[in-house]
Amino acid sequence: MPQTTSWTSKHLLDLESLTAEQIAFVLDTADTFAEVSTRSVKKVPALRGKVVVNAFFEDSTRTRTSFALAASRLSADVIDFSEKGSSVSKGETLIDTARNIEAMGIDAIIIRHQAAGSAALLARTVKCSVINAGDGAHEHPTQGLLDLYTIRKRFGRVEGLKVAIVGDIANSRVARSDLWGLTRLGAEVILVGPPTLLPRAFERLATGPGRVRVVHDFDAVCGEVDVINMLRVQNERMKSAQFPTVREFTRWFGLTWDRFQRCKPDVFVMHPGPMNRGVEIHNEIADGPNSGILKQVEYGLAVRMAVLYLTMQAE
Amino acid sequence: MPQTTSWTSKHLLDLESLTAEQIAFVLDTADTFAEVSTRSVKKVPALRGKVVVNAFFEDSTRTRTSFALAASRLSADVIDFSEKGSSVSKGETLIDTARNIEAMGIDAIIIRHQAAGSAALLARTVKCSVINAGDGAHEHPTQGLLDLYTIRKRFGRVEGLKVAIVGDIANSRVARSDLWGLTRLGAEVILVGPPTLLPRAFERLATGPGRVRVVHDFDAVCGEVDVINMLRVQNERMKSAQFPTVREFTRWFGLTWDRFQRCKPDVFVMHPGPMNRGVEIHNEIADGPNSGILKQVEYGLAVRMAVLYLTMQAE
Amino acid sequence: MPQTTSWTSKHLLDLESLTAEQIAFVLDTADTFAEVSTRSVKKVPALRGKVVVNAFFEDSTRTRTSFALAASRLSADVIDFSEKGSSVSKGETLIDTARNIEAMGIDAIIIRHQAAGSAALLARTVKCSVINAGDGAHEHPTQGLLDLYTIRKRFGRVEGLKVAIVGDIANSRVARSDLWGLTRLGAEVILVGPPTLLPRAFERLATGPGRVRVVHDFDAVCGEVDVINMLRVQNERMKSAQFPTVREFTRWFGLTWDRFQRCKPDVFVMHPGPMNRGVEIHNEIADGPNSGILKQVEYGLAVRMAVLYLTMQAE
Repeated sequence: MPQTTSWTSKHLLDLESLTAEQIAFVLDTADTFAEVSTRSVKKVPALRGKVVVNAFFEDSTRTRTSFALAASRLSADVIDFSEKGSSVSKGETLIDTARNIEAMGIDAIIIRHQAAGSAALLARTVKCSVINAGDGAHEHPTQGLLDLYTIRKRFGRVEGLKVAIVGDIANSRVARSDLWGLTRLGAEVILVGPPTLLPRAFERLATGPGRVRVVHDFDAVCGEVDVINMLRVQNERMKSAQFPTVREFTRWFGLTWDRFQRCKPDVFVMHPGPMNRGVEIHNEIADGPNSGILKQVEYGLAVRMAVLYLTMQAE
Repeated sequence: MPQTTSWTSKHLLDLESLTAEQIAFVLDTADTFAEVSTRSVKKVPALRGKVVVNAFFEDSTRTRTSFALAASRLSADVIDFSEKGSSVSKGETLIDTARNIEAMGIDAIIIRHQAAGSAALLARTVKCSVINAGDGAHEHPTQGLLDLYTIRKRFGRVEGLKVAIVGDIANSRVARSDLWGLTRLGAEVILVGPPTLLPRAFERLATGPGRVRVVHDFDAVCGEVDVINMLRVQNERMKSAQFPTVREFTRWFGLTWDRFQRCKPDVFVMHPGPMNRGVEIHNEIADGPNSGILKQVEYGLAVRMAVLYLTMQAE
Repeated sequence: MPQTTSWTSKHLLDLESLTAEQIAFVLDTADTFAEVSTRSVKKVPALRGKVVVNAFFEDSTRTRTSFALAASRLSADVIDFSEKGSSVSKGETLIDTARNIEAMGIDAIIIRHQAAGSAALLARTVKCSVINAGDGAHEHPTQGLLDLYTIRKRFGRVEGLKVAIVGDIANSRVARSDLWGLTRLGAEVILVGPPTLLPRAFERLATGPGRVRVVHDFDAVCGEVDVINMLRVQNERMKSAQFPTVREFTRWFGLTWDRFQRCKPDVFVMHPGPMNRGVEIHNEIADGPNSGILKQVEYGLAVRMAVLYLTMQAE
C-alpha cells in the first residue's frame, strides 16, 4: 500500500489548486495500482466496507464505468445514482440530495454535473469525500491526471514537452484540467482552435513553470509538438453560431491524414473520447501506432483507483 | 446476531397488521444494526450469498438507495430492476415479472409500485420475501418504522407523545403507515390538513391504544405537539382542484418561521423528503437543531437492515 | 469444478457453429452449476476478481437479470451498461465503445443489440470474451441452450423428440437458435406459422441429424408433438402488414384451451417470455402442470453460469 503522507485532501475538485508535488504523488500512487489491473484476480482490499456513490447527472460511458471499476477493484461497494431514478427529478436541490446520500453513511460521492462549481459546492456541504468527475466547462481533474499519467508513461516525463490541445477550448473542461496540470509539471501548452472558440485570454491561465500559447493556425504548430490532444467536437455545439461547419472544422482543425504527415514521426496522439471519427480525427490515426487513446482509458482506471484511495484515506 | 423468535413473517407489507410487540421487536433489531453503520468496515455477513431485487416502478432516491445499502451491509447481492430496462414495458403483468424473478432464485423482492395492494399481491404469488417500499396511497411501512425509530431515539419512548402529521393526508402512504404505527405504540396522532385533503373519517382509522384527531387548523394545535411530521407537497397534486394554491398552502399548513415560534421549544420536526423548502417547511427549520430530517435518513438504513434480516430469516 | 477440455472458445456467438458434443458439454457443465442455486449461500468463487459487462441495447428483464445473477453466483463483478447513460447516445460506434470497455480490463462483454451480427463483430474486435445475448433476428444462443437443457431435464434426452416452434418464426432469434440446437442434438423440429411469417426455405436450415418441417396448419401437427415452444407475439410486429390480426393469430396459431385438448396428454409447453396471456398462450396452460416456462427461467441461470465459466476459462 502506498504511503499517503503527501496527500491530505478528502476531495479532488480540480487540478488548478494542486501543486506539482501533489500531482506527481497521485501519478506515483497510480503506478502502484496499475499492477493490480494486470492480475488474474483484479482486487485489493484497500477500501473494503466503504461505499462510493456514482452520481452522474450527464451521460457518460468511460468515466462512470471507469470509476465504478476502480472502486470495485479496491473492494468498495458502488451505488449508482442516475438522474432519472432519483429525487432530483422531483425538484430536490443537489445539496439536499447530497446530504441525504451522506446521511446513509456513504464514504465518497463521485459527481458529474452540468453546473461549473457543483463539486466544490458539495464539498463545502458534506463531510464525505467528493470527487469531481466533470462540472460544466470548469474541470475534469481525473481526465487531466490520466492524460498526464499517459504522457509520463510514454515519454518518461512531462517537463519540457510541447503539447497541443486542439478544438473547442473555451467549452472544454478537459482542456482546462490539462492546461493546469501540464503547465504545473513544466510542459508547454499550445492551445489550437478558431478565434470564436479560443479567446487569447487563455494565455494568461498558465500557472507555471510551463507556459501557454494560443494559436489559431494548426498547421503553423503541428510540426513542432510532441503530443496532440484532440478534443471531441460536440454535436450540440456544432449547431451554435460560433462553431464553423463540420467540413470547415475538419479542414482547419481536424487531425487529418495529410496534416498528420507533417507532424513529428513519433508524435503522440490523444483524445478523451468518445471520438467523432472523420471529424476531429482520421480513422487510421486513431487506431495507429501513434495513438495513445486506448492507453488513456486503461491508465484512467489506475489513476482513479489512486484518487479514490488517497481522498478516502485522508482525514 | 439478534434473536428472531418474535418475528415470523417472510414479508413486510404494512404496519396496519402488526402488533405493538412486533413493531418494537423490529426497532430493537434496528438498534443492534445501527452499530454496524458506525464501523470503518460497514459489513456483516448475515445475508451473504442471498440476492435481493430492488424493483422500483416509481422514482426514488432515498428509499431505493437506502435499501440497496442496507442489503449490501448485510453482504447480500442487490440486483436493480428498473421499469425502463424491463419487460414491464413490453406489457408483461407484474405477477409474471415477479414469478420470473423468483424462478431465478431470488431471496427477496423490494417493491415500490403505484398500485395500492401491489406488494400484497406479490406476496400471495411468490415464495420469496416481499418488502413493500410504497404501494400507491396505501402504505410505506419502512418509512413508518424509521419514523417510529427516530422518535424513540429522540424521546426514549413513543407512548404518550403528541404527533402532528401535516399536509395532503388523504394521498399519503407515509401518513397511513405513521398513523398505524404511532397509535399502536400509544402516541396520539393529530392529522392536520385542508378539508379537501383530510376527510374526518380518518379519525376512525386509529387502532389504539393511541387515538387520532382530525384538525383543519394547524395554528390551533401547533403549540401542543411534541413532534411535527411535515408531508411533502407533491407537484403533481398541486395542480388538482382539491389542492389550494402553493401560497395558500404555505400560509395555512406550512411550517413557517412564524408558526414555528409558537411551537414547543423542543418540538421535533420530521419530513420524509424530498423537501420543498419554502413550501411546506422553512429553510432554517429544516437545517436547525429541532430537525430530525437527516437522522430519519440515517436511521432508515438500520431499520431496513432489520427488516431485510428478519423477513429473510423467517421460514 | 468441471473439466474444460471440451470447450476452447472464448466466445458464445451462436449455436449454428457448435457441434453436438460442444452443446452437450455446456449442458453437462450447467448440471454441475444447477446445484449451486439450491444452496443457502448461492456462490462459488470460480470467477472471483473477474469483471463482466452487461451491455444491453434493447429492453430485457429475464436475460439481463439472469446473466447478472449468473455472474454474481460465480463471484464475478457485474457492471451494467445501459444505452441511456452511455456514449452510444453521443454517437460513438459500437466498436469504439467495446474497445474502450475492454481497455478498462473487462473479462467478458455480454451484448444484446438490435443488429444481427453485432456480437460477432465485437468478437473480432476485442480480446475479451463476448457472449451473444440476442442480436437482431439472428440468434439468442443462451436461450437456445436453456431450452435444450429444460427439454433434456424433462425427457432425459433431446434425440428423437418432436418439437413444434410456433409463431413469428421469420423474425425470431429464439426460433433460429432452437432450430440449430435441436436438430444438432437429433430432435425433429416442426416450424408452425402463417406463410407470411414462415417461408418454406426454413426447411433447408436443418443441420442434422434432426430434420425440419415447415407447417402452416397448427392443428395438423399439434397432436403428434412432444414439445410446443410458443414464441412471443411482439406488439410492434402486430402492426405490420404481414401479421394477421391478434384474434386471427390466436385462432390459428395460439395455444388455446381447445387446441391443447388435442395435444398429447404429457405435451411439454415452453415459452421464452414475456408472455401475452390470451394471445399466443392460454392462461391456464401457462400456469398448469404441462408448462415448463418457469423451469426455463430457473435453468437459464445454471446454463448462463456454465457459458460464462467456460468462455472465460478459455485461452
